[in-house]
Amino acid sequence: MAPTNREFLERRNRLLGPGNPLFYDEPVHLVRGEGVWLYDADGQRYLDCYNNVPCVGHCHPHVVEALCEQAAKLNTHTRYLHENILDYAEHLLEKFDDSLSRVVLACTGSEANDLALRIATANTGGSGFICTNATYHGNTAAVAQLSSIFEPIGGYGEHIRMVSWPDSYRALHDLSGEQLSDAYADQVRAAIDSFSDAGIPFGGMIVCPIFANEGLPDIPEGYMQKAIGHVHNAGGLYIADEVQAGFGRTGKWWGYEQSGVVPDIVTLGKPMGAGHPISGVVANGKLIDEYRSREMYFNTFGGNPVSSAVAMAVLEVIENEELVDNAATVGDYVFRGFRDLQARHEMIGDIRGAGLFFGIDLVTDRDTKEPAPDKAKTIVNGMRNNGILMSKIGEHGNILKLRPPLCFSKENADVLIETLDKVMVTV
Amino acid sequence: MAPTNREFLERRNRLLGPGNPLFYDEPVHLVRGEGVWLYDADGQRYLDCYNNVPCVGHCHPHVVEALCEQAAKLNTHTRYLHENILDYAEHLLEKFDDSLSRVVLACTGSEANDLALRIATANTGGSGFICTNATYHGNTAAVAQLSSIFEPIGGYGEHIRMVSWPDSYRALHDLSGEQLSDAYADQVRAAIDSFSDAGIPFGGMIVCPIFANEGLPDIPEGYMQKAIGHVHNAGGLYIADEVQAGFGRTGKWWGYEQSGVVPDIVTLGKPMGAGHPISGVVANGKLIDEYRSREMYFNTFGGNPVSSAVAMAVLEVIENEELVDNAATVGDYVFRGFRDLQARHEMIGDIRGAGLFFGIDLVTDRDTKEPAPDKAKTIVNGMRNNGILMSKIGEHGNILKLRPPLCFSKENADVLIETLDKVMVTV
Repeated sequence: MAPTNREFLERRNRLLGPGNPLFYDEPVHLVRGEGVWLYDADGQRYLDCYNNVPCVGHCHPHVVEALCEQAAKLNTHTRYLHENILDYAEHLLEKFDDSLSRVVLACTGSEANDLALRIATANTGGSGFICTNATYHGNTAAVAQLSSIFEPIGGYGEHIRMVSWPDSYRALHDLSGEQLSDAYADQVRAAIDSFSDAGIPFGGMIVCPIFANEGLPDIPEGYMQKAIGHVHNAGGLYIADEVQAGFGRTGKWWGYEQSGVVPDIVTLGKPMGAGHPISGVVANGKLIDEYRSREMYFNTFGGNPVSSAVAMAVLEVIENEELVDNAATVGDYVFRGFRDLQARHEMIGDIRGAGLFFGIDLVTDRDTKEPAPDKAKTIVNGMRNNGILMSKIGEHGNILKLRPPLCFSKENADVLIETLDKVMVTV
Repeated sequence: MAPTNREFLERRNRLLGPGNPLFYDEPVHLVRGEGVWLYDADGQRYLDCYNNVPCVGHCHPHVVEALCEQAAKLNTHTRYLHENILDYAEHLLEKFDDSLSRVVLACTGSEANDLALRIATANTGGSGFICTNATYHGNTAAVAQLSSIFEPIGGYGEHIRMVSWPDSYRALHDLSGEQLSDAYADQVRAAIDSFSDAGIPFGGMIVCPIFANEGLPDIPEGYMQKAIGHVHNAGGLYIADEVQAGFGRTGKWWGYEQSGVVPDIVTLGKPMGAGHPISGVVANGKLIDEYRSREMYFNTFGGNPVSSAVAMAVLEVIENEELVDNAATVGDYVFRGFRDLQARHEMIGDIRGAGLFFGIDLVTDRDTKEPAPDKAKTIVNGMRNNGILMSKIGEHGNILKLRPPLCFSKENADVLIETLDKVMVTV
């Protein structure tokens, strides 16, 4: 018999500590996953509208088979020659702009971002980096400095500047159009100037190209071009954290394709191995070689034959099942459904996103746009109790976050929209 | 047909960059592993005397089965409840001193060390750390600061002090006994004083408890007690990096058992998942809880149901096959064989280690003890050409490093010793 949640939590707190994060007021005890579905210990089924890691669907047979086949054959580090890492690197790099020509493989998105900062430093001589004021880029000491939503131990260093994320819903000074993108981009230029004033050499700017943690804003027209223009003019590099946006999530292969501004360095993580710990940094060969000439980097597990086989299988499924197109098509369908909901529910202030990644901005009043975090919390828990898993984001915690596996269908979308409608009525 | 090494390297350099590290003058193209054996694309067999990651032997069926079974069932992050992580945590913590009561799971040893530093900082308020002058603790920006054998990008920060590793072969000032351990421990006290003089609050000392990268010294009697005594007197914490020493490698479960000084924080990695990327930080619950109350730490892949199942299977194999005892017994046998070689080969200055982890210190002259890195390089490549994989370590690169899977047998040992004898004759 499965333990009760109370027994579970007591044991979990004893072994892992009470500070270990959990979802939902009543946590979910999952035991099985298949496609877009998750099952708990009592046999209850949940539609997964949250998990981007199992991007091809939970426990995809092709991915599991690739994992098992290679794990039974060989798993070593990459100081021996092996074809898997090369086959994968070749296939992966084909998906990028030609300027992004080499890859370093690691295990987690945090490791990828940590490394990307040092690649930028090695090439620019700069240690000063810009991020936004409502983001998160991972959990190492170096990237925790870029996490504006969780203050790091010891506070922020002098080498970090945070700029406002480009919000067009609660727009800066109520501006719009060119004036709005200028205003946000001016903050980037001001941050660069302030590094200069402080005598801190500038390294670059790291952002998620779709500003996922910030709440998936409709990016003011021209913002990325202007902001990255300032970065490049000052000799800095643009690091695109594609840990959430990458691998088809937005209905395009990469989040940076939304704006068309090609990054100097791209970091990859979460969906890359559909749950298997693999991550990567993709950049121009010159940038990676310059870094490698200055610092020894070796990652024991990164790019091993098993990780590479799994990641290759994930790419194959995305291609074979046309999941990038599916994200675009079903994403549009969901978006239209949410628009219908907005017509009926006053609390929906704004709906944003691309592909199969949605943010629903909840407000107490559409005119004042005052964030409604309590409603968001109630809805997330209400949806969980109605068999749908999702979460919330944003600096105010008022934005519903939906990010289902890429194999999400229109039928799944109907269930989601119908249930959200039902739960919103009760809030 | 397998590609030639030249074709392989051209492709590898194009995709990963020429700075990507490789072993041996003529790299090995491995395609299969089983137990202590590795096989290349031409069917040539190699006795693995290097790899500690597949600690239970390459592709152990019990580990592969646990991996495949769980990967086909469910793989999610730990914000849902799952029993695997708790079963594993409970089993793992039983192996430690009672004071080490909680665990945080991550993916790599680098992540574990990076986190351990912040746990120490959260509890001591200190940001100043001591490491040795010939070590390596991983590849994040924070732990690269502790890597005295590879200088990090931008150089070392003010918050790091390096002390001499406790060498009893080329002993400091030719001291011995109590005087020697006092002299090395005095460096720790001096480093603490220098933090104090610089106004940098002291956080602690991180060392591999068997000083593996330094060259596996016979630790001068009482050194750890004295050094850690100074650390504790100054309010710092002792972080034991067990990434290489842990999980039975030394013929005991943990490297710290050699000295008997129980660490405040232990970090785990490499062999933990026998190649699957899992790592951990084990510490007193109070230390972990204090950290968690001050910083949000969440690791997407850390401790997921698949990683936990794999790590549990590794623990089970170590226990069921009595691999800790095997490391002790076969280790002693190998050690005696190396002593016989030392009687015949003048180049062997010193033989050190414990369990199945050996360092053979090569010298040009036994009286001057001048390191012989060229001989070490020639022997490592000569052994590779004779079907045995090993490497070298130490600040001079003159110490042969042998660290076979824990299932290494006396028959394997005979092959190793006989081949090493044969290769040494030709150098």
